[in-house]
Amino acid sequence: MATGSSGSLRSPSARRPLPEVAVLRVGHRPGRDPRLTTHVALAARAFGARRMYLHPPDDELAARIASVSHRWGGGFAVVPVGDWKSLLRTYPGAVVHLTMYGIPLEKVLPRLARFRQLLLVVGGAKVPPELYQRSRYNVAVGHQPHSEVAAVAVTLERLLGLPGPLRPGEAPQRIVPSARGKRVVGRGGRR
Amino acid sequence: MATGSSGSLRSPSARRPLPEVAVLRVGHRPGRDPRLTTHVALAARAFGARRMYLHPPDDELAARIASVSHRWGGGFAVVPVGDWKSLLRTYPGAVVHLTMYGIPLEKVLPRLARFRQLLLVVGGAKVPPELYQRSRYNVAVGHQPHSEVAAVAVTLERLLGLPGPLRPGEAPQRIVPSARGKRVVGRGGRR
Repeated sequence: MATGSSGSLRSPSARRPLPEVAVLRVGHRPGRDPRLTTHVALAARAFGARRMYLHPPDDELAARIASVSHRWGGGFAVVPVGDWKSLLRTYPGAVVHLTMYGIPLEKVLPRLARFRQLLLVVGGAKVPPELYQRSRYNVAVGHQPHSEVAAVAVTLERLLGLPGPLRPGEAPQRIVPSARGKRVVGRGGRR
Repeated sequence: MATGSSGSLRSPSARRPLPEVAVLRVGHRPGRDPRLTTHVALAARAFGARRMYLHPPDDELAARIASVSHRWGGGFAVVPVGDWKSLLRTYPGAVVHLTMYGIPLEKVLPRLARFRQLLLVVGGAKVPPELYQRSRYNVAVGHQPHSEVAAVAVTLERLLGLPGPLRPGEAPQRIVPSARGKRVVGRGGRR
């Protein structure tokens, strides 16, 4: 069941080469918002980003996400970043700052989709003003206050499409879509 | 500029009648995760839900969201819910539980779009098993662990489209999309 439909669910990727996307989260506060940044990382991973750079670094958070990738598959990792400005300068692709003050995502999507590498940058409550200057695009996912988790997820979904279920063998454990209840197949979850 | 483009950004709504969507967040822990539930509420509001039912109730959170709606426009509110099972029973539309174990969103979207009213339900870490039974649909926004914030945002975006900028007069204060920096027009933010 899952195998039969997973191809079509990922149909956008079959039509054209998709950009490789990474996320940079700046302004993380290790003591205060581990859960929120964890959700940013999990959303980045689930919707197809290759990695999440994190400033300032947070080893515990990185370990939690590594454990998720270990169980649920894929090579996604949280990469510690001491100097985010240096990362922006050297990144070999377009830097896209997600901010409600930016230009509409709908408008800029066709241009973003042409890049081979994209870095989506999300800040916390207080974003350093330089970020607006150092980014190639400042892009609004809606023009209302909401959430960096939502901004990352929706942007990735619009760029890469909705991720379908995995096929057998693609991850140590995987979900088999179910109308009621939970079906997990694989290590620790076989039913 | 904002007025000229906002119509086309909301183009999906011009083509067919869209469902009226509400969100129900169950398993909120007022002491522990006010920020995460705040992000669920803000994402629900920004991506076009009419209201968010919250169980258990959290007056402080509801007040914070009311203040956002007061400034940034729209009638979105957080509605306290003591008995969520009763809400599910009496809701005059389809109940859609968002869970990574469910059937793919891509697959069920055409059916959801035909309802006049939808209630999107998201749980916390531990979801009561009855939720799977009492929901008309159990729907997966990707089949990986991520975030209720992302699940709500992506589902709303797929159902209703990306929200464009507001027109003059639509809210006390509104953002004028900008390639660099911040432009807010209206009470307290005029520039």
